[in-house]
Amino acid sequence: MIAEILCVGTELLMGQVLNTNAQFLSRRLSALGITQQHQTVVGDNAQRLEDAYRLALSRADIVITSGGLGPTVDDITKRVAAKVAGKELVLFPEAEEMVRTRFQQYHRNMTLNNLSQAMFTADSTLLMNPNGTAPGAIVPMGDGKVVIHLPGPPCELEPMFTASVEPYLMARSGRALVSRYVRIFGMGESEVDTRLRDLENGENPTLSPYCALGEVQLRATASADTAEKALALLTPLLAEVKARLGNVVYAMEETDGGSLAKTAIETLRARGMTCATCESMTGGKVVAALVDIPGASAVVRAGLVTYQTDTKTILADVPAEVIERFGVVSVETACAMAEGTRKRLGVDIAVSTTGVAGPDGGTEDCPVGTVCVGVSTAGGTSAARLALSGNRERIRTLAMKHALHMLIEKAR
Amino acid sequence: MIAEILCVGTELLMGQVLNTNAQFLSRRLSALGITQQHQTVVGDNAQRLEDAYRLALSRADIVITSGGLGPTVDDITKRVAAKVAGKELVLFPEAEEMVRTRFQQYHRNMTLNNLSQAMFTADSTLLMNPNGTAPGAIVPMGDGKVVIHLPGPPCELEPMFTASVEPYLMARSGRALVSRYVRIFGMGESEVDTRLRDLENGENPTLSPYCALGEVQLRATASADTAEKALALLTPLLAEVKARLGNVVYAMEETDGGSLAKTAIETLRARGMTCATCESMTGGKVVAALVDIPGASAVVRAGLVTYQTDTKTILADVPAEVIERFGVVSVETACAMAEGTRKRLGVDIAVSTTGVAGPDGGTEDCPVGTVCVGVSTAGGTSAARLALSGNRERIRTLAMKHALHMLIEKAR
Repeated sequence: MIAEILCVGTELLMGQVLNTNAQFLSRRLSALGITQQHQTVVGDNAQRLEDAYRLALSRADIVITSGGLGPTVDDITKRVAAKVAGKELVLFPEAEEMVRTRFQQYHRNMTLNNLSQAMFTADSTLLMNPNGTAPGAIVPMGDGKVVIHLPGPPCELEPMFTASVEPYLMARSGRALVSRYVRIFGMGESEVDTRLRDLENGENPTLSPYCALGEVQLRATASADTAEKALALLTPLLAEVKARLGNVVYAMEETDGGSLAKTAIETLRARGMTCATCESMTGGKVVAALVDIPGASAVVRAGLVTYQTDTKTILADVPAEVIERFGVVSVETACAMAEGTRKRLGVDIAVSTTGVAGPDGGTEDCPVGTVCVGVSTAGGTSAARLALSGNRERIRTLAMKHALHMLIEKAR
Repeated sequence: MIAEILCVGTELLMGQVLNTNAQFLSRRLSALGITQQHQTVVGDNAQRLEDAYRLALSRADIVITSGGLGPTVDDITKRVAAKVAGKELVLFPEAEEMVRTRFQQYHRNMTLNNLSQAMFTADSTLLMNPNGTAPGAIVPMGDGKVVIHLPGPPCELEPMFTASVEPYLMARSGRALVSRYVRIFGMGESEVDTRLRDLENGENPTLSPYCALGEVQLRATASADTAEKALALLTPLLAEVKARLGNVVYAMEETDGGSLAKTAIETLRARGMTCATCESMTGGKVVAALVDIPGASAVVRAGLVTYQTDTKTILADVPAEVIERFGVVSVETACAMAEGTRKRLGVDIAVSTTGVAGPDGGTEDCPVGTVCVGVSTAGGTSAARLALSGNRERIRTLAMKHALHMLIEKAR
């Protein structure tokens, strides 16, 4: 079963609105195992919309539209679909009732043009819209194909999809889909790709890499007639990935949206450990990433951003002579920051960052991109010296990720 | 001149990535006065991509692609465009040099497949990529039409568009374009819209609002045959905007990418002031935003993230009896946090945040969304109590923005 998303609205073409509907719909459709090959955006132009419908219906079984269900002359989505189906729009009394009720609830006057929101081709299935005035619809287009009309505002589209469209699609497909997300830190995308290329060519299960700064994520997906059978296809693939990549794999998860910070919080929570941070060049990014994770309050005790040199001594008890002797960017200072913070705040583990993010401040011994990341537990304190590259933002983000990764490794 | 955006990547069809590139590009193209009628997303499939190129080139003069320039077998964007143009990809020595240099900077091994990033049709114009390994290109497709290849990651695509594509498009259209960005905090989008509606209907200059969480940005753009004439069209519009909106306008800038943090750092620098932060529920977001700005080191002395209650006393000298008497989320505690931090770190100004970000932790007196933001200088200490709404992420981000805005207001 192939679906295609067709978003209608000049505001999307002008960039006034970010197309979150396309992401929402495509994510939900893939989770249902429904193939998607194209997404299209067209403006409020009848001829171009008609062409877009004909093209989409020539290659997909289900065309999902978003937007253009309102009462204005610009709202042509239903009218043009009806034309393509060769049918007339007729007033649905129950839809009229929905629209009238909604206007009463919102204490707004209903003008006559609003009745267009209650008009559909006679064979349409109405979709309730509890969050707006325009109902949606499933519209038969012949040959078993359908157009599904959804409203444009995400706060209306998303609940309508979940409540009405998802059940319809699941019943139609009869397939189960299972995915796992493999998160990797410390190996570049092309190295991952080189090691896994043959596995990435599979059809079922599929394995697809996506890269973020300093990280690679793999999505492994299998489909079968039951979830158990799909999982059975997936399990050997995941074991092979792990065997080839080793411990750069820091998480293997059932849902998307993991991160180093999430794994760090989960690891610390599972171990019953508290933590604190002492950051210089990352400037609060490490602690902010940890506190972003719900449940951080049980784990994160405090964070120090010791940005100017003497505040490392004032706040984290770093001996001034360590800084003087080894330099502010040194493994010794990073160790003293982590250890001082751990002791001052009475936590089980503390991490630290100190480095030169640039664009200024580099020296011959300590060029831009030099970063020391330290970690301290009661069992000992250590630090790594890294040579990172890129602009200020990139160096700081990579340093943050290294600190989070060190926290995970040390806590495990 | 008609342009069409063609985003390539299965990760977009699967919904793993939000298509911010389409919005960025379409916004910039409309500001340049370039017509757009369609946007398309296709996956990493050669036949479908070829069809998409042919269709786009049949209706547009300029096709801008994003994504698929990397070294993996999935990265087919250039290869398929070359096929459509009927040409071969050849190795560009200067592009190879760029790719090699980038790998050296990143201290990563360059595997042979990475050379594919340096291959283009012989008549292509290279576009430098200072933020990643894959160069872009402007590729002639016959009949004066071009395909412009841009990398997928927004942090690479956006600077490349600004530095290389915009000048190319302006030269092609023969017009000079001047923009100014007006940044607003403390007035909602609909209120801004009500006050400026008539100005937003202009054709030259244009005035377009874009809203971010808690903020509104206006982009004012004028075009003329010289930059001087364009600026002369813009100046009275900007004066009128300022007159209508008053001091909710916190910055008026020549370039995009301003922020409350940038204005805060600039304001503090201009006044020769140092600052520090003491954050609870924002968890380091305020200090991280400040340190994100180059030049922060002259201004930001340190930041405290006093996440667990007793660390407010340990790190910022907040009297335990203040917390006990007024509660941890109170204007009194926020004041004590700001004042204690200012004194402990010897800075000219300190800001603080304490609140309930949710989803748990709300009480009847102090529901989720209650946030107190404090600010302290030698001249006095004050705090505001806010009732914010939304989820955890929204509440924390809004609280951060209020703290930064308070810093600007107090420092001015």
